[in-house]
Amino acid sequence: MKAIVNVFLKEGVLDPQGKAVHHALASLGFNDTKDVRVGKQIVLELTTTDMAKAEAEVKEMCETLLANTVIEDYSIEIA
Amino acid sequence: MKAIVNVFLKEGVLDPQGKAVHHALASLGFNDTKDVRVGKQIVLELTTTDMAKAEAEVKEMCETLLANTVIEDYSIEIA
Repeated sequence: MKAIVNVFLKEGVLDPQGKAVHHALASLGFNDTKDVRVGKQIVLELTTTDMAKAEAEVKEMCETLLANTVIEDYSIEIA
Repeated sequence: MKAIVNVFLKEGVLDPQGKAVHHALASLGFNDTKDVRVGKQIVLELTTTDMAKAEAEVKEMCETLLANTVIEDYSIEIA
């Protein structure tokens, strides 16, 4: 079972990496971008086959390790 | 218009960040994970409203800046 976790900075939190990418794109001639945000995508290969259990466990992983919930939000997709 | 780009290391390319997360999860008692891969998720806010044009442009951004196509793959989602 696969779990995909997307971790991204909360709205309003400054994203210097996103700003740098935005600036780099503009200097390469891509002037169509209004804003860029850069987050992390963590793909976990789980041994469990119980979907509910997997989701609960991945949520706990996010809260304890994968995301800094003070400044970051996350979303979980179980596939 | 929003474009979501996921950049991840190709299969077979060693992912030290993923290995570190895997190890950290195990040491926290999460022993259900078989493998962890860490990638980037880049969210672009585009001014264009033409879906085909947006997709072509984002593809070019990936090839020139966002992904290192020697070791990384990417996927594009236009929303």
